[in-house]
Amino acid sequence: MNCKSTIFFLFVMVLILTSFQVYAAEQQEKSAILIAAFGTSYHEAAISIENVVKAAQKAFPEYTVVLSYGSRTIRKILKDRDGIIIDSPISALAKLADEGYTSIIVQPLQIMSGSEFHEILSITNAFAMMKDPHSKPIFSRIVIGSPLLTTEADYEKAVIALEEEMKQYTSKEGDVFVLVGHGTEHPANSCYSQLQNILQKHYGPKVFVGTIEGYPSIEDILLQLKNVDAQRVTLKTFMLVAGDHARNDIAGDEADSWKTVLKKSGYEVQTTLEGLGENDKFVQIWIDHIRDRLSEQ
Amino acid sequence: MNCKSTIFFLFVMVLILTSFQVYAAEQQEKSAILIAAFGTSYHEAAISIENVVKAAQKAFPEYTVVLSYGSRTIRKILKDRDGIIIDSPISALAKLADEGYTSIIVQPLQIMSGSEFHEILSITNAFAMMKDPHSKPIFSRIVIGSPLLTTEADYEKAVIALEEEMKQYTSKEGDVFVLVGHGTEHPANSCYSQLQNILQKHYGPKVFVGTIEGYPSIEDILLQLKNVDAQRVTLKTFMLVAGDHARNDIAGDEADSWKTVLKKSGYEVQTTLEGLGENDKFVQIWIDHIRDRLSEQ
Amino acid sequence: MNCKSTIFFLFVMVLILTSFQVYAAEQQEKSAILIAAFGTSYHEAAISIENVVKAAQKAFPEYTVVLSYGSRTIRKILKDRDGIIIDSPISALAKLADEGYTSIIVQPLQIMSGSEFHEILSITNAFAMMKDPHSKPIFSRIVIGSPLLTTEADYEKAVIALEEEMKQYTSKEGDVFVLVGHGTEHPANSCYSQLQNILQKHYGPKVFVGTIEGYPSIEDILLQLKNVDAQRVTLKTFMLVAGDHARNDIAGDEADSWKTVLKKSGYEVQTTLEGLGENDKFVQIWIDHIRDRLSEQ
Amino acid sequence: MNCKSTIFFLFVMVLILTSFQVYAAEQQEKSAILIAAFGTSYHEAAISIENVVKAAQKAFPEYTVVLSYGSRTIRKILKDRDGIIIDSPISALAKLADEGYTSIIVQPLQIMSGSEFHEILSITNAFAMMKDPHSKPIFSRIVIGSPLLTTEADYEKAVIALEEEMKQYTSKEGDVFVLVGHGTEHPANSCYSQLQNILQKHYGPKVFVGTIEGYPSIEDILLQLKNVDAQRVTLKTFMLVAGDHARNDIAGDEADSWKTVLKKSGYEVQTTLEGLGENDKFVQIWIDHIRDRLSEQ
Repeated sequence: MNCKSTIFFLFVMVLILTSFQVYAAEQQEKSAILIAAFGTSYHEAAISIENVVKAAQKAFPEYTVVLSYGSRTIRKILKDRDGIIIDSPISALAKLADEGYTSIIVQPLQIMSGSEFHEILSITNAFAMMKDPHSKPIFSRIVIGSPLLTTEADYEKAVIALEEEMKQYTSKEGDVFVLVGHGTEHPANSCYSQLQNILQKHYGPKVFVGTIEGYPSIEDILLQLKNVDAQRVTLKTFMLVAGDHARNDIAGDEADSWKTVLKKSGYEVQTTLEGLGENDKFVQIWIDHIRDRLSEQ
Repeated sequence: MNCKSTIFFLFVMVLILTSFQVYAAEQQEKSAILIAAFGTSYHEAAISIENVVKAAQKAFPEYTVVLSYGSRTIRKILKDRDGIIIDSPISALAKLADEGYTSIIVQPLQIMSGSEFHEILSITNAFAMMKDPHSKPIFSRIVIGSPLLTTEADYEKAVIALEEEMKQYTSKEGDVFVLVGHGTEHPANSCYSQLQNILQKHYGPKVFVGTIEGYPSIEDILLQLKNVDAQRVTLKTFMLVAGDHARNDIAGDEADSWKTVLKKSGYEVQTTLEGLGENDKFVQIWIDHIRDRLSEQ
Repeated sequence: MNCKSTIFFLFVMVLILTSFQVYAAEQQEKSAILIAAFGTSYHEAAISIENVVKAAQKAFPEYTVVLSYGSRTIRKILKDRDGIIIDSPISALAKLADEGYTSIIVQPLQIMSGSEFHEILSITNAFAMMKDPHSKPIFSRIVIGSPLLTTEADYEKAVIALEEEMKQYTSKEGDVFVLVGHGTEHPANSCYSQLQNILQKHYGPKVFVGTIEGYPSIEDILLQLKNVDAQRVTLKTFMLVAGDHARNDIAGDEADSWKTVLKKSGYEVQTTLEGLGENDKFVQIWIDHIRDRLSEQ
Repeated sequence: MNCKSTIFFLFVMVLILTSFQVYAAEQQEKSAILIAAFGTSYHEAAISIENVVKAAQKAFPEYTVVLSYGSRTIRKILKDRDGIIIDSPISALAKLADEGYTSIIVQPLQIMSGSEFHEILSITNAFAMMKDPHSKPIFSRIVIGSPLLTTEADYEKAVIALEEEMKQYTSKEGDVFVLVGHGTEHPANSCYSQLQNILQKHYGPKVFVGTIEGYPSIEDILLQLKNVDAQRVTLKTFMLVAGDHARNDIAGDEADSWKTVLKKSGYEVQTTLEGLGENDKFVQIWIDHIRDRLSEQ
C-alpha cells in the first residue's frame, strides 16, 4: 500500500468511526433531569423549589429539567385552590417515557435518605425495570441523585453554607442558633445529630439541631441550651422550603410552637423564615449531586 | 357461661369480624381495569377495541375501566392527525396511582404472550414494586390478565367462536378458510400451529392458520392448500383489530398481499374485514380472563 | 520533547494501558456454565444429561461447567438411595458465588419456556439482583440460555436431527412415527403443535407429536392416526431423558400406557427408549444456545 | 332459629375457622432464623457471635437457627487455617430452600443499615423473588430484621446497656469513656453522632463516640476531649466482635492505634477487649428485632 492509499484508508476509517459516534449521539439525545420535591402549597415558599429548578437548568442547559411534587395532599390543594397542576413523580416519568426520553436523572430534594427518598427510589427502580417489546429498557439509563446530607463532604458544605448566618446570629455572648429539621422515625434521622456534631466542631457549642418529629425533640434541645447558658435564640428552618412547618410549628404563635415554648422557658427568640432553597450554597449541594450522576455516565 | 351469655359472646365476635370486613372493603374501594391494546389509527377498526372496553364496563360495573394504546406511532398519528389523546399504559397507570386507585387489573388485548404482552407485563411488575413513604405498595394489588390464547380451554372457546364463519365459508366442496395472524419471532408464535391443530380436529382440514411475520408463512400455507385440493379461499384477519395489516398485507391489492399471491396461485379469493373484537365470543374470552383475576382476589 | 523522549512516553503509555487490560482480564476471569436439568433417578437414562455436560465442556474448555438438578424429589431419591448428591440450581449458583465466579451462563435443558424454565429464570434473575457491599452485582453477568425449541431455526434443526429416525421408522407404507412429549398446562405447550406442523411440512403426514399431560393427548393422536390410514406406529420419547415417563407412561405394559392403548386400537407398536440427549444433533441445539449468549457478551 | 341451633351454628363456624388455622400452621411449619454476621477469624472473639446464636435459639426454640459469615476473606482463613466451614448468607439460604424451609427471618448483626446490611438486604430480596414451577415463591415469607441502632428506642436500649461501664469507667473526675465504632463512608455512619448525642443527654459529656473509618475520626475525638478537660480515657470497641480492629487499630501498640495516639496526646489510656455480643443487653436488641419481624407475621 503506498502512502496515498494509506492516507485514504485511514481517512475512510476516521469517517466511519465518526459517523458511528454521531449515530450513537443521535440515538441517546433525549436526556432529562427530574427534580422531585415533596412540594409546598405556600406560593411565597415555592421560591426555594424554583431556585433549584432554575439552577439545574442553568447548570445543565442541554437537559430538559422537569419538576414533580410527591405529596398528593399538596398537589390536590394546588389543583383545587389555584388550578395549578404539578405532576407526581410517577406521572412526570410516564410523560418523559411517552415523549421518548431515554436517559433520566432523578434528583430528590430530600435532606436525607428517609421515607420520602425511599419512595422516589422505589419509583426510580421500578421505571428502570420497564422494558419495550424488544426487551430493551424503556429508559436506557435512569439513576437517582443523593439527598442533601449524604457524604461527609456534604456536611462540610452545609457548614460553609451556614457561615454567614452563624456570624449574624451568634455574634454576641448568649446568642445561640437553633436549626429545626423535620425529623422522622426513619433511622436516617441520625443525620441531624451528625450535622450538629460537625457544626459544633467548626463553630463551637453555639449551634444546635433539633427536629419537629424525630430526635432531638424540643425537650432535648431545651436541655442542651441549659448547659451552654443561652439567652437569645434564633430559630431557622432546616428544610428545603419554609412552608407550613416553618410558619406554624416553628415560628407560629400557637402554645406548642418552638417560638412559644422557648419564650416560655425564658429565652429571647427570633425566627428566620427562609427555606434552604433560598441559600445558593445549599442549592449547589443538590446541583453537585446531579453532576455526580452525570459524571458516572 | 350460660346459654345467653354464650350467644352474646359469639354475637359480639361475629360483629367484630364483620366490621373488620366492612373496614377492609372501604380501604380497598378504588378499583380499576386497564384495557391495554396495541392500538389502531383506523377509526372504522377501533370498534373492536371499543367493544372490549364496553363489555368490560358492562361485566364489571363497579370498576373504573380505562383504555391505553401501547404503540407510540399510533398514539402520535391520532394526536397529530385527529387531536385524539389516548394514554400509554405507563401514563394510564400513573394517573390511576395519582387518583388513589389501589387495586388494578391490567388486561392486555394480545393474542398470545409474545413481545408486546411481555412489555405490558414488565410495566405491570414495575408498578407492583412502587412503594409509598410508609413502604406500602402504591397499588395494594396489580395483576395482569392472560392473553387470548392461553389455556387449552381458550383454544376450545376460539373453535366455538369461529363456528358460524366455518359454516359460512366452508360449506361447498373446495372451500377453505384461512386465518391470518400477525406472527412474531417470539417463541409464543407457536400458538398459531396449536390453533390450526385444534381447529382441524373439530372442522377437518378445511381451515388453516398462517401469519404475516412468523411461522407459518404464506408459502407454508400455499403448500398445505395444495395437499387438500382447495379452490376457493376466504381470508380472515386473526387479530383484535382489522387495521393496517388486514387492509394492506392481507386484503390489499399490492403484489405481495395474501389476496394477490393466492389469486396468482389460481385460487378464488374473498376477504372478510372484521377484527376479532367484532365477534362477541372472542371479546368474551378476554372478559373471562379479567374475571379469572378478580376471582383470585 | 525530542524523539527519544516521545518514544519513551508512548512506550510507557502502552505499558500502562496493557497492564490495565491484564488487570481487567484477571478480574473477570472466573466464568462458569450451569447446566440446569430437571434430573432423573434412572442411571441408564442419565447419559442424556451427561452428554450435554460433556459437549458443553468440550465446546467451551475455558469455562467451568457445573450441573444441577431442579427436581427436589429426584435429588432426594439419589441421595437416599445412592448417596449421590447433585446440587439444586440455587445451591449450584450459591457455590459459584462463594468461589468468586463473576460471569455465569445458565443453560436449562427444558424443551420450551414452560413452568420449569420460568423457575430457573426467576432464580437467574434473583441472582442477577444480588449485590456486594460496594453495590456492585455479585455476578457481573448472569444470563439464561434459551430452551430447545425457541426460534424457527431451532425447529428446523429438530427436523434435521430426526431425519434418520424418520427414514428408519417410516420407510414402509402404513408406518407412522409418533413423538411423545411431556406436555404442560403452560401456554408454551403449543410448541408441540408447531413441531408437528414443521415436521409434516418436511416429511408429510407420517409423523405426529402428542403429549402425556398437555395437548394433543393420546385421544387427539388416535383421531389423527385414523385420518392417515396408519398400521405400524413407532413411539419415541420427545424429552431430554428417557426416564420414568418413557419407561412407564409411553412404553410400559400398564393398561393406560401409550403402547397399550395404541395396540388395543389395532396398531402394531414399537418403542425406542432414547432420550433427546442421546442424539448429538439435539445436544448441539442446547450448545448453540450457550454460544448465542457467549456471543452477546 | 332457636337458642340451641344458634349455638350449634356458631360452634360449627368456630370449628371451621379453627381448623383453617391449624391447616395453615401445618403448611408453614418449617421456619428458620438466619443470623448473618460479618464474621471473625479470632476464636476468642467469636463468642460474641455465638452468644447471639444461642440467645436466638433460646428465645425461639421452635425455629431452626443457622449462622452465616458474610466476609469471604474470613471464611477463607477459617477454612484454610482451621478447616472450619461457615456458610455464606447465599449458601445458607440455598440450603434452607433445598431442605424445604418456607419461612425465613434473616437477622443481620450489623450496627446500622450501611453497606454490609444492604448486601444482606439485596440477597434477602433476591431470595424473595425466586419462584417454583407453580409460580409460588420458594420462600412463602422471607424478611430481614433491623440492625442494632434503628429506632430511637434502640438507642435508648444502648444507653441502658452501657450503664454499668459508664459507672465503672467514668466515676472519677477526668475520666472519659470513648466508644470506637468501625465507621463507613455510607450515610448511615451518622448513627455514631446520634449515639453520642443520646449518651451525653443521659450521662453528660463524659462519653464520646468515634470511628476508625468514618466521622468522627480520632482527630475529631481529640478536639472534643480537649473541651472537657479529660485525663483518663477508657477505649471500648463499639462493634459486635472485638476482633482485628479492636486488637490492632484500637488497643494495639502500633504508632497509629487509638491507644498510642491518645497516650502521645497526654492521656492515660486503658482498653477493654469486649465485643458488644458479650453484653447480654446488646444481644437482646438483636433478639428484639427478630421478635419484631415474627410479630408482623
